Amino acid sequence: MKALILGSTGYTGQVLIRLLSSHPEIQEVIASSNSKADSLIQEFDPGLSGPGMEKFASTGKRFVSPSKALKLAKERKVDIVFSALPHLTSAELLKDFFNLALVIIDLSADFRLRDPSVFQKAYSHEVPRLDLLSQAVYGLSEWYTEDIKKADLIANPGCYPTNALLAILPAQKMGIIKASVVINSLSGISGAGKKAKENLLFTERSERVVAYNPGTSHRHSYEIQQELENKIFFTPHLVPIIQGMESTIWFELKSGFSQTDIQKFYFDTYANAPFVTIQEKIPSTSQVRGTNRCDISLHFEENHLILSSVSDNLFKGASGQAVQNMNLRFGFDEIAGLPMMGEL
Amino acid sequence: MKALILGSTGYTGQVLIRLLSSHPEIQEVIASSNSKADSLIQEFDPGLSGPGMEKFASTGKRFVSPSKALKLAKERKVDIVFSALPHLTSAELLKDFFNLALVIIDLSADFRLRDPSVFQKAYSHEVPRLDLLSQAVYGLSEWYTEDIKKADLIANPGCYPTNALLAILPAQKMGIIKASVVINSLSGISGAGKKAKENLLFTERSERVVAYNPGTSHRHSYEIQQELENKIFFTPHLVPIIQGMESTIWFELKSGFSQTDIQKFYFDTYANAPFVTIQEKIPSTSQVRGTNRCDISLHFEENHLILSSVSDNLFKGASGQAVQNMNLRFGFDEIAGLPMMGEL
Amino acid sequence: MKALILGSTGYTGQVLIRLLSSHPEIQEVIASSNSKADSLIQEFDPGLSGPGMEKFASTGKRFVSPSKALKLAKERKVDIVFSALPHLTSAELLKDFFNLALVIIDLSADFRLRDPSVFQKAYSHEVPRLDLLSQAVYGLSEWYTEDIKKADLIANPGCYPTNALLAILPAQKMGIIKASVVINSLSGISGAGKKAKENLLFTERSERVVAYNPGTSHRHSYEIQQELENKIFFTPHLVPIIQGMESTIWFELKSGFSQTDIQKFYFDTYANAPFVTIQEKIPSTSQVRGTNRCDISLHFEENHLILSSVSDNLFKGASGQAVQNMNLRFGFDEIAGLPMMGEL
Amino acid sequence: MKALILGSTGYTGQVLIRLLSSHPEIQEVIASSNSKADSLIQEFDPGLSGPGMEKFASTGKRFVSPSKALKLAKERKVDIVFSALPHLTSAELLKDFFNLALVIIDLSADFRLRDPSVFQKAYSHEVPRLDLLSQAVYGLSEWYTEDIKKADLIANPGCYPTNALLAILPAQKMGIIKASVVINSLSGISGAGKKAKENLLFTERSERVVAYNPGTSHRHSYEIQQELENKIFFTPHLVPIIQGMESTIWFELKSGFSQTDIQKFYFDTYANAPFVTIQEKIPSTSQVRGTNRCDISLHFEENHLILSSVSDNLFKGASGQAVQNMNLRFGFDEIAGLPMMGEL
Repeated sequence: MKALILGSTGYTGQVLIRLLSSHPEIQEVIASSNSKADSLIQEFDPGLSGPGMEKFASTGKRFVSPSKALKLAKERKVDIVFSALPHLTSAELLKDFFNLALVIIDLSADFRLRDPSVFQKAYSHEVPRLDLLSQAVYGLSEWYTEDIKKADLIANPGCYPTNALLAILPAQKMGIIKASVVINSLSGISGAGKKAKENLLFTERSERVVAYNPGTSHRHSYEIQQELENKIFFTPHLVPIIQGMESTIWFELKSGFSQTDIQKFYFDTYANAPFVTIQEKIPSTSQVRGTNRCDISLHFEENHLILSSVSDNLFKGASGQAVQNMNLRFGFDEIAGLPMMGEL
Repeated sequence: MKALILGSTGYTGQVLIRLLSSHPEIQEVIASSNSKADSLIQEFDPGLSGPGMEKFASTGKRFVSPSKALKLAKERKVDIVFSALPHLTSAELLKDFFNLALVIIDLSADFRLRDPSVFQKAYSHEVPRLDLLSQAVYGLSEWYTEDIKKADLIANPGCYPTNALLAILPAQKMGIIKASVVINSLSGISGAGKKAKENLLFTERSERVVAYNPGTSHRHSYEIQQELENKIFFTPHLVPIIQGMESTIWFELKSGFSQTDIQKFYFDTYANAPFVTIQEKIPSTSQVRGTNRCDISLHFEENHLILSSVSDNLFKGASGQAVQNMNLRFGFDEIAGLPMMGEL
Repeated sequence: MKALILGSTGYTGQVLIRLLSSHPEIQEVIASSNSKADSLIQEFDPGLSGPGMEKFASTGKRFVSPSKALKLAKERKVDIVFSALPHLTSAELLKDFFNLALVIIDLSADFRLRDPSVFQKAYSHEVPRLDLLSQAVYGLSEWYTEDIKKADLIANPGCYPTNALLAILPAQKMGIIKASVVINSLSGISGAGKKAKENLLFTERSERVVAYNPGTSHRHSYEIQQELENKIFFTPHLVPIIQGMESTIWFELKSGFSQTDIQKFYFDTYANAPFVTIQEKIPSTSQVRGTNRCDISLHFEENHLILSSVSDNLFKGASGQAVQNMNLRFGFDEIAGLPMMGEL
Repeated sequence: MKALILGSTGYTGQVLIRLLSSHPEIQEVIASSNSKADSLIQEFDPGLSGPGMEKFASTGKRFVSPSKALKLAKERKVDIVFSALPHLTSAELLKDFFNLALVIIDLSADFRLRDPSVFQKAYSHEVPRLDLLSQAVYGLSEWYTEDIKKADLIANPGCYPTNALLAILPAQKMGIIKASVVINSLSGISGAGKKAKENLLFTERSERVVAYNPGTSHRHSYEIQQELENKIFFTPHLVPIIQGMESTIWFELKSGFSQTDIQKFYFDTYANAPFVTIQEKIPSTSQVRGTNRCDISLHFEENHLILSSVSDNLFKGASGQAVQNMNLRFGFDEIAGLPMMGEL
C-alpha cells in the first residue's frame, strides 16, 4: 500500500505522518506540502524519528510540491490520498487526483454537507464540486461503515461532529429524544489549526476559557444538524489544552424508556466498535489523548439524559478516523496502526 | 474598621488578606489560622508585600490561633469577621463570635440554604445552626442589596451560583423563561480549594478537561435551584486554569418578548451595578481574572437565549463578593478596595 | 500630570494603560496606536474597566493615531511619553516628540546600548539616533537612580537584563566575582510580544520547554554584558507561562569573603529599595506576578554563589519599571501606582 | 516472556503497564499494587485500552498485592521484575524476589550509588542492601551496555542523571572538560511522583517556575557526580508541564580541541544509539515527549560548550529506559516496544 498526504505540515498532516509511518499495511508514503516543498520532513518536525521514516525514502524524506505529488501518484501507483488541506483549497488541489482511480479521504469540509445550500450558508461559498457530492460518503466510521467500505471519496467528519454525534446517534436510533438537543463542547486549541493568528497565541489562550460562535455561527453546527432529526443548540468553547475535546449533551427523554434499556442500547450499539466505549465514570479527555478512541458516559436526571463524550480532536476527530476509514475501505484490521492507550 | 479572617491559609483566605490589606476603610486585620498559628504571614505566602502588610502589625504580622482570634476580637473591638473555613467547621468555629455583636460574613455553605432539608440533602449532614438560619441573608450582592445593608450574618454565595444566577435572574424577573434551564459551567482548579488530593495534582489536571457531578450530585446545584423557579440542569466541568469560571446557559423563551426588550431589560437591571456588565462580545474569563467583575453576553437563537457569564471564582465567586458585601453593609463605596482591571 | 503612550496595543502598552489609569498622580492619558487608531480602547481590551478609564476621556476613550498623538501632546501639554513600540520604529516615531521638552521613557532597545557598534552587532542595524545616545540614561531604577531623577530620555531596560542585573550587580559592586558569570533564564511567552507568529501559538508552546539563542545570539546578552565587567554566558529558555521570568546565576567567588558578609552586602544594597527583596527561600515567579517586584535568593556551594532572581517580564521587566522611573523622575512616591501583591 | 511490575499505580508504574502491554516479546504481565490490590486495572487507569490488556488476563486484569505477586512470580515463572516503588520501600519489597533467579530492574535509587556513604548523605539513611550493591549495574543504557547485558540486578538511573549524563559523558570521555560543570535542569511536574502534596497541586504549579534544591541539596546531584570526574553545580527547576526535562550544561573546554572534532566525537559516540541523537537545532522537550529518546545540541561560545539535552522524565528518564535495559539484557531488538515519535 502506498499513501500520499496533501497538506502535510498542518497539525492533521503531522498526525497523518505519524500514523502512516507506523501503520503495518503501508509501505510507502509521499508527503506533500506547498510551503515546505523540498524541505527535509524531520527538519520541519523534529518529533519524527524511528524506522517508520524509511517509508518516506522515495522522496528523499522530503516534502514534495503538490504538482510533484500528482506526478508521483501516477508513477508510483499510489493507492490512497489523504487531503489535510483547508476547505476549498482541498477540492481545488484534489482536482486532478479524482481521475486517478484511487481512494481519496478528504479531511476538509468540502464534501461533508450533502445539501449545497447548507454548504453555502456554512462556508459563504458555493460547494466546490457539486458534481462529485453524491459520490462522497460521510466518513463517520461507526455509522457509515458499509458505505465507507465501498467508497472512493470519503468526506472525513469534523472534530466537533464526530465527538457529539457518536454520543447522540444511538439515542436518535432508539427514538428517545423528545425535543431539542443542547450541545456544549470544549475544544483544545489545536482544533483551530496551525495558523499564525493573534488570538491563538499562547498568551491569548492560556489561563482562560471562552465560549465562541454559539448556534449556527459555528460551521460545524450544520454538519451535526445534518445527521440529526431534532433541532440542536451547539455552543463550542476554547479551553487551554493542546489536544482533546469534550461535549456535554442534554435532551429530554420520550416517556416509555427505562434507564436500563437505554444503557443497554448504548452498550449494544458499540459492542463491536473497537474505538467507542460506554463508560461508567464520566471520562476525561486525557484518557483518550493521542488515541482514536471516543469514551462516552450517560447520566440520567429527571427524565433527561446528560451525555459526556471525549475524544482527541486530531485523532478520532481528524487523522485517526481517516486512517480508520482507510482500514475499513481496504479490509484491514479496523484498529491497525491506531493507538489505543491514552495518557496518564 | 477592624477585620478578622478565620481560615486565612486557604485560597479564599489568601485573597481576603490581599483585598483587606489594600482596602481604604480597613485599618487593622487579624488573620487566624489553626494550622499555621504563630507563623509569619509573609513566610507562608511570599506573594504578600507592600505597605498594606502594616495592617497586620497588631499580631506581629503572624497568624493567630482561632482561640486567640476570639480573644483579640473582643479586646480590639473587631467590626467584622470573615470566615473562609470549610462548611460545618465554619459554623462550629464561628459559634462564639455570634455573641459579639459584630458583622459576620460566612464564605462557607453553612447559612446559604434556607430549607434545612435541602442542606441535609446537599451536605449529608443536618444544618449546623438552625437557630440562626432565619437571620442569615444570602449575599448575592446585586440581588439582596437592601437585605445585605442591614444584615449581621451574611451567607456569601458559592462561586458557581454567583456566576450562573447573575446571568439567569434578570430573565426570571422579566418572566421570560419558558421551561428548564440548562447550565454548563467550567471552573478553574482553585475552586476545589487547597486540599492535598491526588486528583487535584498538576499532573492530574493539566492538558485535560472533564465534566463531573452532573445534576444534583454537585452541592451547588441546590443553591442555584433555591433562587430559581424553573428546574435547572447543572453540569460543572474542571478546566486547566487556576482562576476563572464560565457558564453557558440555555433556555427557551416564552413568546411575546422581543430581543430588544430582553437586551434592554438586562442592561437596565445592571445599569447601576459597578461589577456586572452586559457585553456585546462573548466574554473570556481572562478579562475578569483578579477582579470582582461578572461579564455577561446574550445570544438569541430561534426563540432561545444562550447566555455566557464569566467571573473569577476567588473574587466575585468568593472573597471579592465578601468585601463587596462588607462595603454595602457599612455604607462604603461599593467598589472600595475591589480590583476592576482584568488580565491581558 | 498628563501621559501619552505610543504603541498601546502590545502587551507592554496594555500594562501601561492599566498602571497609568490607576496611578494617583496621573490625571489624563492619551493612548496611541497605529493599527487600532479611532477604536474604542475597552472594545480592544475588555479587561479594562473601572473609574480609571475616565482618564482617557479627552480622546473619547479611543486610541489615536501617532500623528494625532503628536498634535495632542502639544495641545494638551503632555508631561511624559512612554514608547512601547518595537526597536527602530520607536526612535522613528519618537522623532518629533524629542523637541517637545517633555520626558520620554522608551521601552524599546533604541537607546539602551551606549556603544553604537554593539547596537549594530545586536540589532544588525545602525543605532537610530546616535545624536541623542549620550543624553539617554539606562533606566535600571535601583542602579541609575540619581541619573534617572534628572533624565529627559530614559532607556527602559529589557526584561532579561533587569532580572539578571539586579541579582548580579551587588556582587560586582562588592568585587566578589572571580571569573565568568553563567546565566540561565526562563521566560514567560508574553516576553516575545504580541506577534502572530507560528512558533508562539498555544499549541506550539504549551506542555514543553526549550532553550533558544544561547550566548550572543540573544540581543539581551549585549545589554547584560554592557553593565558587567566579567564575561557572561547567557542562555534564555521559553517556558509555558504567560508572565514571569526566573534567572539562575552561577559564578565563582574570589577568596576572602564570608557568606555572612556577602549576604549582608546584598541585604544592605537593597535595604531601601521597595521593589527588590533578598529572600531566605528560593522565590517562585508566582509571588511577583503582576507586581513591580524582583525577589532574589542566594545559595552558597563550595566557594560559588548561585543566585535565583524572579520578576514579571511585563512589570519590573518593562512597564512597571517605566512607571517606577517616572515616579523617580517626577519626585513621586517610588511605589505610587505600582502593585506589590503577587499571586497565590 | 513474563514480566511483573511492583508499584504499578505511580506514574512510572502506569507507563510500564503501557510499554509492556504493547511490547512484542512480552506475553504476560502481572501488575502489583499495595493500595489498589484486587481493583480492576482499567478502572484505576481509564487511559488503558486495546488488545494489549489481554496480557493481564492471568490476574483477571486486576492488580495483585505484593505478597500475591511474589507467589505468582514463582508459580508462573516470571522472567523479569520491574520495581517502580519509592526508595527503601523498593529494596524492602524486593527482598524475597532476589532469591528467585530472575532479572530485577529497580527504578528506585536503592542500588544506584556505589558508595554507601554517599547514599547515606543523599538519602539520610543507610544503604538498604549493602550485600547486593556490588552486583548491581548502573542502568544508563548507552554507557553500561555490556554490563547491562549480563546483569541480574539493574539500578535504573534517575531522570535528571539520565538527561544530564547522556550530554556530558562524551565530553568527559574525550577529555575536553577543563573545570566545573554547571547544570541547570527543568523538569515537568510528573517527575515529583503521584503524591498528594499541597505544593504539587495544579493551582500551586501552573503559571509559574521555580528553582529548588540547588547543589547537593538535590539527591540526584550525587548520582550525577558519581559518574563524573569534574565538580558539578546542579540546579533543578520545576516548570508547568506534565512530562519533559531539559538540561542546559555549561563548561570550559580544554585547549587543543576544535569544534569540528568535538562535534564529530559526539556524533560518533551515539552513531549506533537508536535513542540518542545529536541535533543541529536546539531541541524542545515536545519532540521527545512520550518517547525513549534523548536529543542533544551543542553550542560553542568562546572556548566554552553549552549543551542542551531533552528527554521525557517518565520514558528515557524512567520506565522507557527500564524497558530498553530489558531489551539489552534479553537480547531483544533495542528499540522493541519503545516509542520513537514525539509530539507536534
